[in-house]
Amino acid sequence: MQTPELSVSKWLNTSDDLSIEKLKGRVIAIHAFQMLCPGCVLHGVPQAQKLFETFSQEHVAVIGLHTVFEHHEAMQEVSLRAFLHEFRVTFPVGIDQPSVGQDIPQTMERFQLRGTPTWLIFDKAGELKLHAFGRIDDLLLGAEVAKLAFENLPITTNIYKKKGKQNETF
Amino acid sequence: MQTPELSVSKWLNTSDDLSIEKLKGRVIAIHAFQMLCPGCVLHGVPQAQKLFETFSQEHVAVIGLHTVFEHHEAMQEVSLRAFLHEFRVTFPVGIDQPSVGQDIPQTMERFQLRGTPTWLIFDKAGELKLHAFGRIDDLLLGAEVAKLAFENLPITTNIYKKKGKQNETF
Amino acid sequence: MQTPELSVSKWLNTSDDLSIEKLKGRVIAIHAFQMLCPGCVLHGVPQAQKLFETFSQEHVAVIGLHTVFEHHEAMQEVSLRAFLHEFRVTFPVGIDQPSVGQDIPQTMERFQLRGTPTWLIFDKAGELKLHAFGRIDDLLLGAEVAKLAFENLPITTNIYKKKGKQNETF
Amino acid sequence: MQTPELSVSKWLNTSDDLSIEKLKGRVIAIHAFQMLCPGCVLHGVPQAQKLFETFSQEHVAVIGLHTVFEHHEAMQEVSLRAFLHEFRVTFPVGIDQPSVGQDIPQTMERFQLRGTPTWLIFDKAGELKLHAFGRIDDLLLGAEVAKLAFENLPITTNIYKKKGKQNETF
Repeated sequence: MQTPELSVSKWLNTSDDLSIEKLKGRVIAIHAFQMLCPGCVLHGVPQAQKLFETFSQEHVAVIGLHTVFEHHEAMQEVSLRAFLHEFRVTFPVGIDQPSVGQDIPQTMERFQLRGTPTWLIFDKAGELKLHAFGRIDDLLLGAEVAKLAFENLPITTNIYKKKGKQNETF
Repeated sequence: MQTPELSVSKWLNTSDDLSIEKLKGRVIAIHAFQMLCPGCVLHGVPQAQKLFETFSQEHVAVIGLHTVFEHHEAMQEVSLRAFLHEFRVTFPVGIDQPSVGQDIPQTMERFQLRGTPTWLIFDKAGELKLHAFGRIDDLLLGAEVAKLAFENLPITTNIYKKKGKQNETF
Repeated sequence: MQTPELSVSKWLNTSDDLSIEKLKGRVIAIHAFQMLCPGCVLHGVPQAQKLFETFSQEHVAVIGLHTVFEHHEAMQEVSLRAFLHEFRVTFPVGIDQPSVGQDIPQTMERFQLRGTPTWLIFDKAGELKLHAFGRIDDLLLGAEVAKLAFENLPITTNIYKKKGKQNETF
Repeated sequence: MQTPELSVSKWLNTSDDLSIEKLKGRVIAIHAFQMLCPGCVLHGVPQAQKLFETFSQEHVAVIGLHTVFEHHEAMQEVSLRAFLHEFRVTFPVGIDQPSVGQDIPQTMERFQLRGTPTWLIFDKAGELKLHAFGRIDDLLLGAEVAKLAFENLPITTNIYKKKGKQNETF
């Protein structure tokens, strides 16, 4: 099956117009969220921020996708911007393109998301490898991303943004 | 440098006499802890248990090492056994062999550990690749272990013990 | 000093038009928050909900006050309503009356609040007894509210909404 | 019914030989725990330490009671001492007097405790007012202790050890 492309009405935290096609060559980790979804605010978004701060952007692209499917008036761009500012979200976030006449926005529809939070993780060829709805453990997420990041790379490659201060060997 | 070998007076939660030599061919993740060290009880040991439950034992060996270097009388085998039982620790745990006439036990001395908790992670060839003293984040730990586990394996290999219930694709 | 009165443009989660004057006779615990303030979302609002669920409304009135002093466009009534719904906030919440031509709303100005989250706690005579900016511990908050609730009441009075299931004696 | 008295084989963190009789005049909050009970280590003991640090000792006596009813050999005095040191427990702790020929120690038997952790809270007359087995919320615990502490005292009495740094009014 052909992987669908993102449909985004506006990008925040980036000046680029991002797409799966353009990001090929890196692992792409897309975090679909809503700014008023408790599971996203309390767990998913902080996890995405941590993922963004752990891996080198050269190897792993972490992207938020604001997939509003309820309370549309409550989560307009001005509110999302304040949320990202106050909760110190620094990874790029795309606003999922609303669909005319229905609640589910376009990218959410294309990927058949069941709700938020959802992780969509693509390998370097742009193929969807993980579709996880709900809470996923940090340990497993780190493992999945690392697995895809090291594909066809020497294991000695540094895929991290910064090394842990106490980690002497790696 | 030659990797030192473990020196263990007794193994718990296993009938095998484990060693780095015997475990070669798998990633070996050794968690050095003390049962009365708050950082171990509150963070390190639960993290080791989670690592043990996430990865297949065929690919990753998770082992505890009880490296008592203080309060020796307080942390004898009978107390350690009750701790492992009550805190539901099911991975193999070796008691680091005490050294005659000094506080630091033998394996702790050989690997020059700075304290507890400490992770020692070895690649499949038995070479020490990560030596981390203190708290290490789950996401980074999962990434490091996965990286070593996939070395020379097809990326499609299943290295996990169980799949997350909500993860539909991988 | 005369205690100022609340100035509220709209009440949510209640059909009453609440005021300190009307609530006299009970302890009044006012939680001033903003729906996009991380310290409020992660700690203050859940604490207020717990306070509301612990004490009998007959003795303790728990009230939220949405004191928007920044990102005004981001935190309009429609967004606040969705926030309260999604985060399961059931105590009454008043929207602090905006001030013409300045960021600080009227009640926030009258009580000289330094920011959010802030607790304002009044005794049964409507006198301000505690003004706490920032995080306050549950144990201390419970103690302060109980102290004021029992003033001039027999100590055997039940001031709780529900008893803890495991508490056999009280 | 006559309140039973404590039966303690040794006191730690105090040079006094404490008893309910001697502590009358203050609220007495007894936390029954075992050093290898996860619910005690992760929640109960830190809560008792917080209670001890919140209220003035003049008004509230917080006491630990080490009620070992299983794994007796694992939780001897030498291990308890190391636990208290490492987990920074500074309130007085009594070792519940073992009973000859049975697992349940004497005070645990007298008060008919169902297990650990358990709170026993007495009013200033030494009468048992709360017997709570399992986890009790900080907010409710603070309220219960404050209620008993203010009995027959002017509400303006300071019953706290230290005031919260941000609390300007009380």
